[in-house]
Amino acid sequence: MENTAKILLDLFLIFAAAKVAGEIFNRLKQPVVVGEILAGMLIGPSLLGWIGHSSFLDIFAELGVIFLLFTVGLQTDLTEMVRVGKHALAVAVGGVTLPFILGYALMAALNRPLVESLFVATALVATSVGITARVLADLGKLQTRAARVILGAAVVDDILGMIVLAVVIGISRGKFSLLSTLLVAIEAIAFTAFVVVLGRKAIGTFSHKIPKLHMPQPAFALGLALCLGLSAAASYIGLAAIIGAFLAGLVLAEATEATRLRQNMEPIYEFLVPIFFVITGSRMDLPKLFTPPIISLTLLVVLVAVIGKFLGCGAAAFRLGRHDATAVGVGMIPRGEVGIVVGMVGLSRGLISGDLFSVVISMSILTTLMTPPLLRLLLARRPLVV
Amino acid sequence: MENTAKILLDLFLIFAAAKVAGEIFNRLKQPVVVGEILAGMLIGPSLLGWIGHSSFLDIFAELGVIFLLFTVGLQTDLTEMVRVGKHALAVAVGGVTLPFILGYALMAALNRPLVESLFVATALVATSVGITARVLADLGKLQTRAARVILGAAVVDDILGMIVLAVVIGISRGKFSLLSTLLVAIEAIAFTAFVVVLGRKAIGTFSHKIPKLHMPQPAFALGLALCLGLSAAASYIGLAAIIGAFLAGLVLAEATEATRLRQNMEPIYEFLVPIFFVITGSRMDLPKLFTPPIISLTLLVVLVAVIGKFLGCGAAAFRLGRHDATAVGVGMIPRGEVGIVVGMVGLSRGLISGDLFSVVISMSILTTLMTPPLLRLLLARRPLVV
Repeated sequence: MENTAKILLDLFLIFAAAKVAGEIFNRLKQPVVVGEILAGMLIGPSLLGWIGHSSFLDIFAELGVIFLLFTVGLQTDLTEMVRVGKHALAVAVGGVTLPFILGYALMAALNRPLVESLFVATALVATSVGITARVLADLGKLQTRAARVILGAAVVDDILGMIVLAVVIGISRGKFSLLSTLLVAIEAIAFTAFVVVLGRKAIGTFSHKIPKLHMPQPAFALGLALCLGLSAAASYIGLAAIIGAFLAGLVLAEATEATRLRQNMEPIYEFLVPIFFVITGSRMDLPKLFTPPIISLTLLVVLVAVIGKFLGCGAAAFRLGRHDATAVGVGMIPRGEVGIVVGMVGLSRGLISGDLFSVVISMSILTTLMTPPLLRLLLARRPLVV
Repeated sequence: MENTAKILLDLFLIFAAAKVAGEIFNRLKQPVVVGEILAGMLIGPSLLGWIGHSSFLDIFAELGVIFLLFTVGLQTDLTEMVRVGKHALAVAVGGVTLPFILGYALMAALNRPLVESLFVATALVATSVGITARVLADLGKLQTRAARVILGAAVVDDILGMIVLAVVIGISRGKFSLLSTLLVAIEAIAFTAFVVVLGRKAIGTFSHKIPKLHMPQPAFALGLALCLGLSAAASYIGLAAIIGAFLAGLVLAEATEATRLRQNMEPIYEFLVPIFFVITGSRMDLPKLFTPPIISLTLLVVLVAVIGKFLGCGAAAFRLGRHDATAVGVGMIPRGEVGIVVGMVGLSRGLISGDLFSVVISMSILTTLMTPPLLRLLLARRPLVV
């Protein structure tokens, strides 16, 4: 029973630290996710040492990130995505391609192994639009054209990012060859397509029958079961569990009961997702992070992260005019939780080293923190086209 | 990562089995908890073997039962309890004392070790009033005097049951002596009193400040933190974690935000509590349960369980008249989830053997299944005093 007591104490410390950090960062009007990671650094082995590493905590972190991606999927509207159209699609593709190429090129130039380089490149792909959306909402700019393009592109980014992650994980499983890469890419895309096509069809057919079930909260029960089932399935075929969770959310977002499901997921989210970010923070190797070579590497990666998104997305949005295109480029910079998730997937599979993990997390935090002031500065000078 | 895939698959199988069983038992108008345990027997090692034992599943079961007892505590109204008064108190004390003495006497007569005997006696103490309340509600009898006495007595039972469990666990930790028993009883009662007195005071002082916090869902965050913290504390001083969780709920039931907290807990409950019952069912050693000596022992324990509550509570309610006292005696028979929890605490601490664990679970299921028809039969003949 000592073991249970220790795990309960760990969970209490992690959860309490997350909530204290959340309270402080909410008051400072800073992203809560950054507060949770800093809380993890504080109570982790690098500083206070209140929590250590354990396979139990790994599982809770994994469940936290599964429910995070499930929720992201639930909030992704495939139909809306098609509607925002060509601008958003172009911005998303530009914002995926350039950061990936630049990130891979940087790592390869530094003679890092192939898989590590691919992981860093993948971490640079995703966009965490939550931060930008919050700033635009605070400034009353959510109804502008640039805002719609940013939000639409971020949704496409999530989907493209998941596919890139699936392919990179696949490559990491075998020896690298053009054929194996192709096979893996086909497997990842086939899994995605299979789940989405079959899932949308099933939801279309059975969605109206869900409220007729006799179990309490039937939509929630089916949603959780689908989330756990697809996460397990993705894991078994060698993809990341979060890809299954994201697809489960994506499919269920179309169900008539989706609103209630999102509400029911909130407490699970508030319980488990902060645990993921605190544990992520606790994995940061702070003494190593603050050595000159790692600081230089972090700065280089941040530079590539900023330039990649700013140029990739900004150029793709050139039809919006220079000012709006600039706003789109800046708005797509933050990596937030999505970059962190890719870092944790790489670390937990032993595919990236501890120092590179710390670099990826730092890059995610820094790009997230720099965007709000940049965006405010830009929009203070000239308003966006409505 | 194979490990993660396996755990996710286990969680999916357990959760899906629980929900399918819940659906079937809801349609059959039978207690869902029984369905969940049967589902666990089915997919557990005794039959299909889809899930086995693992320390990860133990932790999820533990979290499930922690949130179960937290919710029970949240629904326990200390003030109301004092109001229902003498009848309910007498019934509760009668229903704790007689089953405990009879249960201990039976086990001792069968030459079972002291700690095992005490655990079986403790499993006989608790009342799961959910079943009875459901039957009375279905018959429109919740406003009768007997119903109020049953519900009030069941609340007192929960509290007395937790104290008995704490004392028994304490005794199991050391060599048995009158002095050590006394010390353990004092420790358990002191922990309970300390938490309740200090907790109620803190809630009275700070409750109105909770909605002013900046974190999302502040009542929920504080509630979960208190639940995890007191569970860990109870574990560390050698009590069962569930005692801390129950006390956390009891204290928070008085907060002005209690209603919202109860609503927020529902999804966590629907996620983790069924997992606890399915895992409990999977631990049943079915081949051994259906051997003549264990069948005889189960029947004896069920007999003691029924007679103990029926006579103990019925006699204590004699002032209500013969018919109402009979209804009270019958209404207090089901052990439901509370007996099961005591069994799991004993098994997971290695304090009761696997066969006796199966006996305790069978007793809990049988007393739960027999009460609704008995109660309907009794009330069909003559109505209760309003």
